[in-house]
Amino acid sequence: MREYLENVRNTIPLVHNITNYVTVNDVANVLLACGGSPIMSDEAEDVEDITSVCGGLNINIGTLHKTSIEGMFRAGKKANELGHPVLLDPVGSGASALRTNTALGLMKELKLSVIRGNVSEIKTLAKGRGTTRGVDADVADAVTEKNLDEAVVFVKKFAEETGTIIAVTGAIDLVSDGNTCYVIYNGRPEMGKITGTGCQLSGMMTAYVTANPDHPLEAAAAAMCAMGLAGEIGWSRMQVGDGNATYRNRIIDAIYNMSGEELEKGAKYEIR
Amino acid sequence: MREYLENVRNTIPLVHNITNYVTVNDVANVLLACGGSPIMSDEAEDVEDITSVCGGLNINIGTLHKTSIEGMFRAGKKANELGHPVLLDPVGSGASALRTNTALGLMKELKLSVIRGNVSEIKTLAKGRGTTRGVDADVADAVTEKNLDEAVVFVKKFAEETGTIIAVTGAIDLVSDGNTCYVIYNGRPEMGKITGTGCQLSGMMTAYVTANPDHPLEAAAAAMCAMGLAGEIGWSRMQVGDGNATYRNRIIDAIYNMSGEELEKGAKYEIR
Amino acid sequence: MREYLENVRNTIPLVHNITNYVTVNDVANVLLACGGSPIMSDEAEDVEDITSVCGGLNINIGTLHKTSIEGMFRAGKKANELGHPVLLDPVGSGASALRTNTALGLMKELKLSVIRGNVSEIKTLAKGRGTTRGVDADVADAVTEKNLDEAVVFVKKFAEETGTIIAVTGAIDLVSDGNTCYVIYNGRPEMGKITGTGCQLSGMMTAYVTANPDHPLEAAAAAMCAMGLAGEIGWSRMQVGDGNATYRNRIIDAIYNMSGEELEKGAKYEIR
Repeated sequence: MREYLENVRNTIPLVHNITNYVTVNDVANVLLACGGSPIMSDEAEDVEDITSVCGGLNINIGTLHKTSIEGMFRAGKKANELGHPVLLDPVGSGASALRTNTALGLMKELKLSVIRGNVSEIKTLAKGRGTTRGVDADVADAVTEKNLDEAVVFVKKFAEETGTIIAVTGAIDLVSDGNTCYVIYNGRPEMGKITGTGCQLSGMMTAYVTANPDHPLEAAAAAMCAMGLAGEIGWSRMQVGDGNATYRNRIIDAIYNMSGEELEKGAKYEIR
Repeated sequence: MREYLENVRNTIPLVHNITNYVTVNDVANVLLACGGSPIMSDEAEDVEDITSVCGGLNINIGTLHKTSIEGMFRAGKKANELGHPVLLDPVGSGASALRTNTALGLMKELKLSVIRGNVSEIKTLAKGRGTTRGVDADVADAVTEKNLDEAVVFVKKFAEETGTIIAVTGAIDLVSDGNTCYVIYNGRPEMGKITGTGCQLSGMMTAYVTANPDHPLEAAAAAMCAMGLAGEIGWSRMQVGDGNATYRNRIIDAIYNMSGEELEKGAKYEIR
Repeated sequence: MREYLENVRNTIPLVHNITNYVTVNDVANVLLACGGSPIMSDEAEDVEDITSVCGGLNINIGTLHKTSIEGMFRAGKKANELGHPVLLDPVGSGASALRTNTALGLMKELKLSVIRGNVSEIKTLAKGRGTTRGVDADVADAVTEKNLDEAVVFVKKFAEETGTIIAVTGAIDLVSDGNTCYVIYNGRPEMGKITGTGCQLSGMMTAYVTANPDHPLEAAAAAMCAMGLAGEIGWSRMQVGDGNATYRNRIIDAIYNMSGEELEKGAKYEIR
């Protein structure tokens, strides 16, 4: 895991983000914390120029607007032309037709490197329709020790069918390219009480994949481990009276301070 | 007050927020802190689906856009159809014609459960026009011990006329349904030095009203007490050198950790 | 420097911000921290009313939208009519045609009091075209002890030609009105690892210039010193394990607590 983190710090990948206005500030600070450099732009007329000066593109549909949808397609096509990795975070897919259809449309029109979402969002995309409860995963969908085998099969199959790395976050995280599946045990449940830890991870994962062009699967898995590990380190620094606002800061701080060695030691995963 | 807080934690109300991009992240984190679950969406084509999977709707006009105005009306009508509570936060009403007219239009077209604003904003809506200085209340409008009786009469009358719970924040807070008026003494003046404590309260109040459908007045008052109490607890944890950025985090942390018992003990109010 | 800070605290200038959605919350909190009062509005129909109740206007092109561009021109013209100071923060000029052209258009159509950017952005505007790498300054452009003389000449000349105060941030900061150039040594390199310290400075600088109408150059320089000094004070409070998220809060806290005397003592500059 060590080298994937260090490659981010050494190459400072510039990541173009078309993301929601809820968590955008945290996404920018996480990208800076991990060693990347963020730029945000969603206006259709602006995105092609911006994506051209960047190394990777992070598309997050958390607060869709008509104009930003056009920006997503235009930026994505330009990034594809330039051979830049493109990550899709299908926030709230299944909760509205606009979100589901936009995510499915992006999957169809673009060559995506990674799709990162919670299990309900990913299932929605796999089925082509969905029943997500808002932006959080349904309890019924949760990946647990009990249904892990089944979940690994599902993620591998969807990755294979789409030719895209699928990264599913939850109590147990899964990252697969169709052949191999990382099963990741880092993280804490309290991370779900902070808005946007998923969005932050998507931003950071784009930086990792951009900085490690020959190892996108490993890089995506390393970003997933780094986020979970930061959640563990951040939690260990919490004091009496601290809550989710302080925890948010502690997690970003942990990413800022994380070394390759720390990630190597702290990453908890198996490969299936 | 205890049960109103606990009902939020037990039922995890999903709140649809159409809110400004200035304070949206804090609104989301406060909703998570209090035990609710936030989702943000303002695109006209998206809002009906989103509000349908939620339990309540929070409309905040802090940064109006043409497209989000359409979203507010469409979401509000759908929420009315579904019997969901709808809260309006008329940020900056009186400071511009667009804001005043949008708030008045929403009052006319929608069945609102609660309007929550500062006294200048609420006076603007009561008069149908206004003279607000930006997004903060005019000093001349402040509710103090001196003009409290008069202010209670005003708020009760406006609540009665509109059939809406009116929640006015300031040095002294007032919450009335036309019959009863809660006069609330929680809070600290330094809360005014943080952007968006009002917006945060509106989000949390929507969660409280959603989780307590049979007691909207009491739930709105409980949310008001909880926010003020969090301001007091947060302030008590401030250290030398801390300022408004740290205070912002401390307040959200206090909401995250607040128990029903703590609210019961800490709420300072009288009923008129 | 003392009086310029104190004039902000004493007059509480209301600043209209048309700014990007990435860092808008921090801009609002910094404006409150320094003693000003923020209001955000970018909808073309809203901006003239809003700018009319304010004392100064801060235009930041960090996330341009078609509608907000129209809002920038309309607000700027109204502010010019009213004699309010207008500051332009040309974020990412040089990184896209839309950004460069919008900034150049605003320079042409409006009477700007201040342009504040990094050296790559300012060079782009001076040349009328550019090669910025994203939103951060190119290393090749950095103002250092070595090229300081040359940089001072460049900034003075551009200020003279445009009749605008030019404020360039970097390892060494420069602020000039064409005759005089403040060379400012406050700040820390780690400030670049937080998103939006430049945007925050632009908001605060607008407040300073608004509160000191007879000394815009000195006020702009004082704001620059205050931001850098806050970066130094904030850094001195960092503990083991803290990172850029905590640092962000510490800087805003330092602005909140800064007295005129502290600024007077801590400001490190020479006049050329």
